Amino acid sequence: MDLSERPRVLKHQVVRSRLEELLEDLVEVDPFPAECELAESFSVSRETIRQALRELLLDGRIERRRRMTVVAGPKILQPLSIDSYTEAARERGMEAGRFGWTHMTADAWLAERLALSVGDPVLQLERVFTTAGVRIGLDTTRLPAHRYPDLEPDFEVSSSLYAEFARRGINFGRTEDTIETALPDAREAALLHVDARTPMFVLKRQSYDEHGVLIEFRRSLYRGDRMAFTQTMYPD
Amino acid sequence: MDLSERPRVLKHQVVRSRLEELLEDLVEVDPFPAECELAESFSVSRETIRQALRELLLDGRIERRRRMTVVAGPKILQPLSIDSYTEAARERGMEAGRFGWTHMTADAWLAERLALSVGDPVLQLERVFTTAGVRIGLDTTRLPAHRYPDLEPDFEVSSSLYAEFARRGINFGRTEDTIETALPDAREAALLHVDARTPMFVLKRQSYDEHGVLIEFRRSLYRGDRMAFTQTMYPD
Repeated sequence: MDLSERPRVLKHQVVRSRLEELLEDLVEVDPFPAECELAESFSVSRETIRQALRELLLDGRIERRRRMTVVAGPKILQPLSIDSYTEAARERGMEAGRFGWTHMTADAWLAERLALSVGDPVLQLERVFTTAGVRIGLDTTRLPAHRYPDLEPDFEVSSSLYAEFARRGINFGRTEDTIETALPDAREAALLHVDARTPMFVLKRQSYDEHGVLIEFRRSLYRGDRMAFTQTMYPD
Repeated sequence: MDLSERPRVLKHQVVRSRLEELLEDLVEVDPFPAECELAESFSVSRETIRQALRELLLDGRIERRRRMTVVAGPKILQPLSIDSYTEAARERGMEAGRFGWTHMTADAWLAERLALSVGDPVLQLERVFTTAGVRIGLDTTRLPAHRYPDLEPDFEVSSSLYAEFARRGINFGRTEDTIETALPDAREAALLHVDARTPMFVLKRQSYDEHGVLIEFRRSLYRGDRMAFTQTMYPD
């Protein structure tokens, strides 16, 4: 055995793994023991308990409900798919809530991604998605404005952008996704009501139509403590 | 515009976004300005600079090289695939380094996942993957031991487990993947040489053969600051 690394294990990490064992025997929405109670039963300081709880919170294992700490429900499973996440999400009870349109012009970075020239008009749509009242994701779609005349007045933002593309005769040829992890910035943390230390998913997508022309450049930020992606694959 | 949330932006977050602008003009391995230099030019404390740098470090934007801070290279892109990640990774210069075999017995949780009875023998293989000397991932594969006689003496751990399955006449029918984010525990952080606050990917895979019999239960932990997954999808 070549992996017997002896890490310096901090006290709160020992507590955390014992709390994880405790979680195995509890079910969703079960109340979690109080800080003072845990401090006493583990004979450690309340600060140590607090640190262990913070990590379980960032990991989506426990949740705060008003002044209570409860066992968190399972993560929302989102299959990776070329289809509209809005529609897939709606089937899971997710909905588009707050939104904002921004008119911008392409800088060099965006011009390259949207196959435009620097200075060309770009339309940006931001939407916050919620599930059972919990804000779960922030979706930012950037579109070459000349391709979508009157999109802002025409489009019902709580519906699917992909359905709107289809209505306009634009059909998907392929999507290219990149999935990364990230920490939210101050605005993102505020919009999604998360601690700035919460690991997040960033899904970046470039979609192309049947002729290889770019449809959209999208950046979706999802709470890693509440979401997981799934995929089933078969051999060729 | 319904998204004009006014978050309380902390000083180090302002510095971080200005440093991100600075990064746009730099290329890989460029030296990054020193802490004291940055503190002076932004007129903030060294502690504020340190916090901003820590976030850029956790995000994989900068790297420590000996006593220097340099601009990090692009993340390693790993296509999502049913095929062996070991083989795909090797094409990208990744290799299996330290490893360990563990003989264990199935508890209720594992028995369910490996389609065994509680108490049945389980063989666990852990491998650390490195890329250009940097530890990037920790792979834990659990196998129903009775299905793989003599695997431990026969298998060359730096090679592909999937190739070994094929040699034993086991062919893949499908894989079911779940991708989550997580924070590393103390041992994982030590094995992968990362800060315990680094967002990580956890890829859990259950693979089945052509007859629907489970082949393996795998948990792969990848550094989110050094890795991204990619996928190209086409309509049905």
